[in-house]
This record gives sequence, structure tokens and C-alpha cells, in this order.
Amino acid sequence: MAVYTKVSAEEIEAFLTRFNVGTLVSAKGIAEGVENSNYLIETTQDRFILTLYEKRVDPDDLPFFIDMLDHLASKNCPVPPMIADRDGMKIQQLCGRYACLITFLPGISVTMPTVAQAKAAGAALGTMHDALQDFEGERTNTMNRDSWRTLVMECGPDGLDKASPGLFHQVNEELDYLDKMWPSLLPQSVIHADLFPDNILMLEDQVTGLIDFYFSCSDIRAYDVAVTHAAWCFSKDGSVFDQSVSAALLAGYVEKFGLSRDERDGLPILARGAALRFLLTRAFDWIHTPADALVTRKDPKAFLHRLHFYQKNPEIFIA
Amino acid sequence: MAVYTKVSAEEIEAFLTRFNVGTLVSAKGIAEGVENSNYLIETTQDRFILTLYEKRVDPDDLPFFIDMLDHLASKNCPVPPMIADRDGMKIQQLCGRYACLITFLPGISVTMPTVAQAKAAGAALGTMHDALQDFEGERTNTMNRDSWRTLVMECGPDGLDKASPGLFHQVNEELDYLDKMWPSLLPQSVIHADLFPDNILMLEDQVTGLIDFYFSCSDIRAYDVAVTHAAWCFSKDGSVFDQSVSAALLAGYVEKFGLSRDERDGLPILARGAALRFLLTRAFDWIHTPADALVTRKDPKAFLHRLHFYQKNPEIFIA
Repeated sequence: MAVYTKVSAEEIEAFLTRFNVGTLVSAKGIAEGVENSNYLIETTQDRFILTLYEKRVDPDDLPFFIDMLDHLASKNCPVPPMIADRDGMKIQQLCGRYACLITFLPGISVTMPTVAQAKAAGAALGTMHDALQDFEGERTNTMNRDSWRTLVMECGPDGLDKASPGLFHQVNEELDYLDKMWPSLLPQSVIHADLFPDNILMLEDQVTGLIDFYFSCSDIRAYDVAVTHAAWCFSKDGSVFDQSVSAALLAGYVEKFGLSRDERDGLPILARGAALRFLLTRAFDWIHTPADALVTRKDPKAFLHRLHFYQKNPEIFIA
Repeated sequence: MAVYTKVSAEEIEAFLTRFNVGTLVSAKGIAEGVENSNYLIETTQDRFILTLYEKRVDPDDLPFFIDMLDHLASKNCPVPPMIADRDGMKIQQLCGRYACLITFLPGISVTMPTVAQAKAAGAALGTMHDALQDFEGERTNTMNRDSWRTLVMECGPDGLDKASPGLFHQVNEELDYLDKMWPSLLPQSVIHADLFPDNILMLEDQVTGLIDFYFSCSDIRAYDVAVTHAAWCFSKDGSVFDQSVSAALLAGYVEKFGLSRDERDGLPILARGAALRFLLTRAFDWIHTPADALVTRKDPKAFLHRLHFYQKNPEIFIA
């Protein structure tokens, strides 16, 4: 969460002349999103987010993300479409990076969701899944179960055990368990795969925006419910589970889209997978970020607590 | 330039209820200013900057900055006044930090000023000095010549010579020279002392905002001209001096406020001091920031080049 590529006001002014969006009035680098550089831009006409894609976003995936956002916007999902320039192009280049000019959406990201907000988030996820039923794009999940084994190797036994004693053994046991139990035949779809509270904009209890689609991919649709559950239903450090927020999130989703019997039965396993996925990426970042670096390292244990909770409490997903 | 203190949307919402400014619509952490945490806030009524004061700003100085901004605003200088809460208070506390809610100003910061922009910057500095003539606040310059000697000690011979071979000797010679030659009897005033292009907002050639007053202090008024000159009239790396930008900046200032004969005679020395001041603070930050930290270290040599230029070319200040 920083601005990695510094773009001067003059460069932004020149960039905006490619579009039909007015002239520059204000530009502020913002600390937001995955590891991209973002600027909040105001012109004489409107406000926009300018995103420059750094590592972690493969430029070959940009057309998929653009198609997905266009598809969702055409079905009135509150997503931020990318703006086409005068030639109809949406993928731009700026300062040696791929870049997109994106519609600004109002709304704030809650950190302690209320029951009503969790219900709205679940409903927004359901509405999105409904809108994606006839979307034909496809993208491999770069954070799928194969990648989890790779992450474990890249973290190494020492690294994992330093993050939390005994972690290497625990994650290997869990990976073996998930290999056996993973409900691979559940219905697939394009999913968001990262719908944390950070990535939902709200005004009071209304969802005004779904953002940050850079992990979107083709995978088991109910896995998206599991990820969202792991992201929304616990205290930040993972130590406290909120049953009423959990029930509201699932109820909101079921109301808008529904969960089959099989999907509901699969959720305890999918939720363990979701907890493990974020445990491993956080452990990787933790191990590979110097302790004195000026970025906040997110403690992987927050998702180890969630994993332990899901291991012990599969019944929370029973309707 | 990062967000050091993370404030949740809920905390910002609660904070805004102290004021008469509407309710929260959007909040983005922005990478801006000296080492404070800043959020660009939109409410149902207006836009604001929320600043949380980290290190480098002494809370005891906040009343001085507030008085100065109020004084300048009352004289129609384009400065961002701090907003009073319902009880008339401007200094707040939030997340364990002192905090102020500040009027948002449109405009962008240029990085390669044109002649017209440099003239407008000089004129804005002159207008500000004129408005400050009857301002009675006082604040010691924490970055005055005494502090430069302290910085040299804190950098150490090895640190300075590592930043640039022979630097320790050079800065000591320069300090001795400035001790002898410093025009201490020139008129004093409250000055901005850090009027880099970053700290002037513009729309085309019009100044729309003067910001970041956290180095403002009582000192030789023409020293402010020297600082602004060092900040505006060179390429970023200090290697290229722009005579036409320099002439325009000085002309803009003289048109609005004027320079006495003595002040003009003092400018070559004051400019060497300004270059040395930023050389030393940058060297300090360079030496004390790990090379692998995720912040951009500003190369102190950019101001060593300026110092050498001023040593060799005192005639540029002759009218």
C-alpha cells in the first residue's frame, strides 16, 4: 500500500489528453489496493482513479479484468469500469507501466462490519455471481491449491516455524487433508476471490462499489463465499468469530443467489482452504519483508486462528 | 510520503461528528507532505484533508501554524485553513495523534516549472511576505544554522563521505564560510522556509494554494527567497540551472514585495545556506534510511550540485 511509480502532474495532464474527460484539477497519490500505484484524479468534468500496474498483475490478464468489469457494469453491478480513450482503448501505457483510467466510486470500506453491512456484502456477492452466470471469460486462479504447495516451499520450514512455531507441519497436514477432501466437482464460475471489506465500498448499509478485481479467476463458485466469509466474520486478528455477522453474510448471499445442498456441505472445507490461502500469502510476505521496512507486515497468525476455528466448527455453515 | 497511522472509516466517521461538515462519503489515505499521515476526505458537503501529526511536527507548534494560516487566509492568500469543530477547537486528537481537519484546495504541483509558473510562484511568495508583515506569531527555525552543525555531527564523517566522497570536509568548510559571511542583520519575518514546487498548488499559471507550513518560522525574510530559488530553478538532480526560471521567480517576487539592495547582496550567501540546509537533511535521511526500505531516498547530491553552482555563480542574483 504505497505509491511505487511517481507520476508527475505534467505527465498526468498529458495522459488525460488521450481521453475525453476534461483537464486536470487535482492529483493525489493514494495508498490503496494490491501492489499497484494509484492516483485519485480530479478533472474539470469528473473524478477518476489512475492505476499503474506494478508486479503481481500480469498485463496479459488486463483484457479479462476489463471484460469482466464491463459485463458486470452492463448488469448494473456497482463496479468501476475502465475508461476508453478517444480511440476506444482502455489499456494504456504511462511511465513504463501499463495503466488504466478508472471511474471513481464513492463509499467507504468498513473495518468492523455490522450485521446489516455483512448482509449487504453477502447480497452483493450473490448479485455479482448471478450477473456472472453468462460471462464467458476465463482465468486460471494463480492462487489455487497448487500454488499453496509452492508457497510452502518458498517460505521454507524455518520461515514458517519462525512465523508461528510448528506452522510448517500444520500447513502440510492441512494441505494433505484438503487434497483428500476438496469438493472439486462443485459448480465453477468466474469469482472475485478477494472480497475483503477493503474491496467493498459502502454508504451506511448500501454497497456502492465492488473494487480490486485483480485476483478474479475461474474457480469453484462457493469458494468465493468461503473467502468472503473468512474475510468478514472475524475480528481483524482472527481471534473472535462473529456468529451473527456470519449468519447475515450467508443469508444475504442465499437471498440473492442461493446455495445448493452440495455447496453448503462443501463450505467447511472451502473455508479451511480460504483461511490457508491467506495464511500462506501473508506468511510469504511476512518472511520476505524486512522487519524494519516501512510497510505494515500483516501477521499471518490472523488466518491461522481462522483456520483453527474452521477446523473445529464445521457446523457454522449448516442452515 | 506514506500513511503512517491507519485510521478506519468508522473512526473517521465518528471524528467528523465533532464538526459541522456533513457525513462521510469517501476517505483515501494519500501520500503527501512531510512525515504526517494524510487522508483525502469527502463528505456530503465538501472535501477536506485530515492530517495526523507524526514525528517532525511538535504539537506545541500547532497553534503557531493555525494562527499563521488564519492570518494569511484573512488577507486572501490561498492557504488551507484548519476547520474549527462545534466548540471552536481546531487541534483535535485521533488514534493517539494530534490531528486537524483542513480545507481541501484544488490545484496540482508542477515538477518542471515554466517561466510563467515560476513568476507566479515568486509573486505568491511576495504576496505572502506582504501579508505576514503585521503577523505577530514567532517560531524558532528548528532548521537554522545551529542545527546544521548538529546534523553534520549526527551524519558523521563516514556517513557524509559515503553519501559523496569528501563531503564531510566540504560541508565543514562551507559552515565556517557561512558563519563568517551570514547576513544576520537583514530584516526578519515569519517565512514559509520550504516552498518547493510540491508545496504550491497551481491551475495552469495561477497559484491556487500554498501548503505544508510545518517548517514555517521566524528568520531572515530573504532566506525564504533563497530557499524558493534553490527549490525551483534547477533540474531535480541539481545538475542544470535554468536562468530564465530564476529571473522570472525573482521578478515575480520583486513585483509583489520587492528586494532591498542589502537583501539582494545577501542572496548569494543565503542561497548557499539554503542549498546546504537541504543537502544536510537529505544526507541525514539518506544515511539513516536502510537502502532496502520501501521509501525513495532523495539523493543529497542534488543539493550538493546546487551548492557548488551558488558558490561559483553569485552574479545570478544581480538585478
